[in-house]
Order: sequence, then structure tokens, then C-alpha cells
Amino acid sequence: MTDTRLDVLTIGNAIVDVIADTTDAFLEAEGLTKSSMRLIDAEEAERLYSQMGPARQVSGGCAGNTAAGVSAFGGRAGFVGQVAPDQLGQFYRHDLTAAGVEFTTAALDVGVPTARSMILVTPDGHRTMNTFLGAAQHLPSSALDEQQIRDSAAIYLEGYLWDPETPRYAMIRAIEVAREARRKVAFTLSDTFCIDRHRDGFNELIDGGRIDVLFANQAEIEMLAGVAHLDTAVEAIRGKVETLVVTRGEHGALATRGAERAEAAAEPVGEVVDTTGAGDLFAAGFLFGYSRGKSLEQSLKLGAIAAAEVIQHYGARPEADLRALAGELAA
Amino acid sequence: MTDTRLDVLTIGNAIVDVIADTTDAFLEAEGLTKSSMRLIDAEEAERLYSQMGPARQVSGGCAGNTAAGVSAFGGRAGFVGQVAPDQLGQFYRHDLTAAGVEFTTAALDVGVPTARSMILVTPDGHRTMNTFLGAAQHLPSSALDEQQIRDSAAIYLEGYLWDPETPRYAMIRAIEVAREARRKVAFTLSDTFCIDRHRDGFNELIDGGRIDVLFANQAEIEMLAGVAHLDTAVEAIRGKVETLVVTRGEHGALATRGAERAEAAAEPVGEVVDTTGAGDLFAAGFLFGYSRGKSLEQSLKLGAIAAAEVIQHYGARPEADLRALAGELAA
Repeated sequence: MTDTRLDVLTIGNAIVDVIADTTDAFLEAEGLTKSSMRLIDAEEAERLYSQMGPARQVSGGCAGNTAAGVSAFGGRAGFVGQVAPDQLGQFYRHDLTAAGVEFTTAALDVGVPTARSMILVTPDGHRTMNTFLGAAQHLPSSALDEQQIRDSAAIYLEGYLWDPETPRYAMIRAIEVAREARRKVAFTLSDTFCIDRHRDGFNELIDGGRIDVLFANQAEIEMLAGVAHLDTAVEAIRGKVETLVVTRGEHGALATRGAERAEAAAEPVGEVVDTTGAGDLFAAGFLFGYSRGKSLEQSLKLGAIAAAEVIQHYGARPEADLRALAGELAA
Repeated sequence: MTDTRLDVLTIGNAIVDVIADTTDAFLEAEGLTKSSMRLIDAEEAERLYSQMGPARQVSGGCAGNTAAGVSAFGGRAGFVGQVAPDQLGQFYRHDLTAAGVEFTTAALDVGVPTARSMILVTPDGHRTMNTFLGAAQHLPSSALDEQQIRDSAAIYLEGYLWDPETPRYAMIRAIEVAREARRKVAFTLSDTFCIDRHRDGFNELIDGGRIDVLFANQAEIEMLAGVAHLDTAVEAIRGKVETLVVTRGEHGALATRGAERAEAAAEPVGEVVDTTGAGDLFAAGFLFGYSRGKSLEQSLKLGAIAAAEVIQHYGARPEADLRALAGELAA
């Protein structure tokens, strides 16, 4: 993995989070499943927005959060995603660039605005996401900078990209380019609903040997394997990918590579303020370690450090200097 | 003050806050005066934005914050301010409307975007504001709904409106309409730099008897009076307005009306998280009480309750139900 310009290039939906407090009664009245992510169209986005409370806006999107995390470790990170030429798009670009992430995908004017996810936070801290993909679902294969992919030690893709057809093809093309250049391909299953929607497509990617590093949480790996038992699910999937990483919240995480298996405990945290971005930041830490040739155990530890930082404050992007937090591990 | 449709109609700059963490070194390198508010043009806004870190966006603006506060007490609040027909403007309108505030000023397309204030937060919690007024400085007198003004028990204007010429005339016109309808006119001096820029204009308003309720903090009233002594400054100004309200942070607040003088202690707070909006919310509580015929002391207490709530969380708009916090006082 020498002669690379970037450690990790992430590809995903460029989404601005629009976050408002709400009540359980509101979720019920709206018929929303707490803690889920659903995709909505422009009309529903407009309607829901008019019903929800005052909001704050922060840049989000899983792959964007992961890229910001890699950069906070001192890694060289890039992001590919589609924004529109509007204020939300400018805001999104600013935030990634200011975080030290290379983001060169040009804005695209196809008459729809930059994606936003309306996130409703109940008093118990759960977040229910309503995502209008807007411009993000128009990421064309032609927007990929293939040299940028070849220049990256690893690319990282989110399962959510599979939802709309256009970025799905861009994602498949990115995997081809990376594999031809013998770069690593990492993939996250995103969430159980996403697996449910795209089980066949995900199985084709994984069974076809096109994924080197697979990220999942416990519920996701069990759903993918079709068994409600962690070890059985891990055994069923581990042989299909070079590296498998399974996060388990406060129970830590595990990773396998061939016959090797490593575990890491969760890092101690003070108060859990907001769990959004925990998985994205775990992936950031692990991928930073992985792309720098660290051991499985070291990479898991880097993931745990990043996840612990991000859940101790609001927002899904790191606020602390993760490189400093990781000390020698990040050297 | 019967037969009014609104308790308080606030008029001010419609500004979205763009908030980022920074360092003292950054402020120094940029030549910025910590804790001040400066006005910047589009070019400087672009340049500074490209230099500052990842940001979050929340609706702000003094008068908008005050209107949201009045509404959170169960008061009937309205806001007048100029946004552009863009995403920031939609965001601003949503947040006020969702807070129960009547905001009917139409968006105006004059080729400049909605105002934003880039707020740089140093580790000591101080906030240095860089405001690009954009559309806000184009609020024309013709945007005023004069019947709305006549329907309001009190109007509340911010000194910042005096900065650009167009809204200055709108403000003067609003005062005329309110006075003709025998409605109360409240005014905040905004900040000491603003007084410095517009001392003559402010004195003309106040000496001319066009202000019923004047809001100032200690530094502002001393600056307006030209004496560095609180009691002397209060004595110099109190005769020029019906009601004078002076806030003093953790030292509480005082108010005068004719020969009457009342004081209130600051409400106890746990941790002070972010002092932005303390003055705006104090004004909200006081004006809510004032417009409902409460005593000076009760109105001060309502102001103190609102200010205490807003400084215990990030952001300049109330998150708690102020009406519930105020109990019988808000009945």
C-alpha cells in the first residue's frame, strides 16, 4: 500500500442533518418507527419539515463522517458524493474541506436540492431519520475520479448508496476500478432495513469476493447471515471477505482475517450524549489503522477510541484531535 | 392594551448563525476583537468561511430570538425581518414558525443571500461574531404590515437595524405607526460598538420621546450616558423613557418607570454553557410580562427566568417550556 496519495476514500450520500427535538407522541402520530431511517420524497420532506420543531443543521452522511474521522487521526482522507449547487451543498463542502478531507466531486444541477435528513430526537435520545436524498441519488459513474480511486489505499462504501440506481452503478464502477488497481474495498451494511431492501445485491457483492473489509454491527451481521446468533453469523460470513469487523456497542468489537480473530473492549466513556455516528467513527479508526498496516487488534482499538469520542458530544463528526487521543497508536 | 392580536412584534435582522470552534491564535491572526460583533461584506464572508472550521447552523438574530422567547412563555409573538428566497431563508422561516411566531415578511430577491453570522467560539466560551447582512439590509418600509403593527401591544426593535440605511427607515416608520396607534415602542441598544457607530441617531430617538421601553446592559447604558458609573447613568437616562431596563448578568437586573424602581436577582443556574442570547431572552421575558400588565418586578423576574434557561444550553433560543418554568407568573 505504498505510493498512495490517500489512505481512505469514502463514497456515500452527501447529506446535511436537520435535527429537531420531538416527542414519542409525534412519532406515533406520524406513524414513524423509532430509531429507523426511512427514505422520503420531496413532497413528504416538505410536509414533515412544516410539522417539526426548530432545528439545527450539521453536515452528516455516514461516509462523510467516516472521512472526517480518518482525517482527525491524521490520515489522508477523501470523499466522493453528490451535492447540488445550493447553500446546503456549499455548507457540506465547507465542513468536509475544513476537516481536511479532499472533496472534489462537482456540484450537479439536476433541479433537486442537496440531500437532507430530518432527524427527530425523542427525550430518550433515540434518533428517527427521514432522509430526502435529493441530489445524492444522482451521483453518476462519470463523477468518479478514477485516478483518485487508484491513488487511495482503500475505498469505503456505504450500503445506503445501493438504494437509488444511479449511485449504485457508480459504486459498482468504483469497486471495479479499485480492484483493478489492487486497492482494498471496504463496505458497510449501513442498517438492517437497508439489508432487508437489498439482500440479493449485497450477497452478490460479498459472495462474489468483491469486498475486502466488511463492517457490520451485531444485528446487521446476524440479519445478513440469517441467524440470530453472533458467533454463528460471524462463522458464516468470515470466509467470504478478507477482513470482517463487527461492532457491538458497549460490548466492544471483534474482527477476523483468515484464521485470525481479535477483540477489543469498548473504550470507557463518561456520559453518552448522542450515539449518532458511532459506527461511522468506528469504521474511521479501524480503516485508518488498517490502511497504515496496523494489527487487527490495534485497528479495533483505534475504532473504539473514535467511537467513544463521538458519542460523548452532539453530532456525528469528531470534535477532539483523535490523533492526540490515540497517542502512539496513531503514529 | 386590549384588542390586540399580538403581544409583541419584534423587528430585526433575520440572521442564521454559523458556529464553529476556534482558537485564540486564529482570532489574533485574523485581527479580530474577541466577543465583538463586526459587519463584513460578501467577499470577506467568503474568505473567512473558507478559513474557519466545520460549523453548525442555527437560526439567530436578536429580535428573532426575542420573538421565540415571547412565544415560549405562551405570548403571541410576531417577527418582521428580511430573508432571501434561498435555503437559509427557508430555514429561518421554518424555525420561527415552528416556534409559534408569526413571520409573514415575504422573501426578497435582490441578488444577495439571507444574512448569516459566522460565530467563532474560543475555548473560554467567548463568541466573536462576523455578520454578513445580505438580504437583511434590504428590509424596506414597504415590507411592513402596518395593520400588524397596530395590532400589537408592543413592538421591539434592535439597535443593529440602524446599521444599514434601508431598514433604518423601516424602523423609523414602524415607530411612527406604533405611536400613532398608541402602541408601546421598545428598543435595545444591541451592543456598545453599535452605540458608538450610531450615538446621534439613538439619542435622537430617545431624547425625542419615541422610545417607551429601553433595554441596555450595564456597559451600554454607561456608554449611552457617557459615564462609567451605573447609578449615574441610570439617573441620566431614566427620565427620557417611560421604562428603562438594565441587565447586569449574574448581578441581576433593574428597571425604572417614572419614580418607581425595581430590581431582580439573577436566577440560579447550574452550568453556564453558552451566554449567547441571554439579553435577547431577558427582553422576551420582560416584554411578555410588560405586555400582559405585570409589575416591573414580575417582568424582571420573567426576564431572569428566560435568560437563565438559555445560558444553560448551546444556542440562543429557548429549549424548555418557559411558560411552565414561570408557573403562576406567566398565567
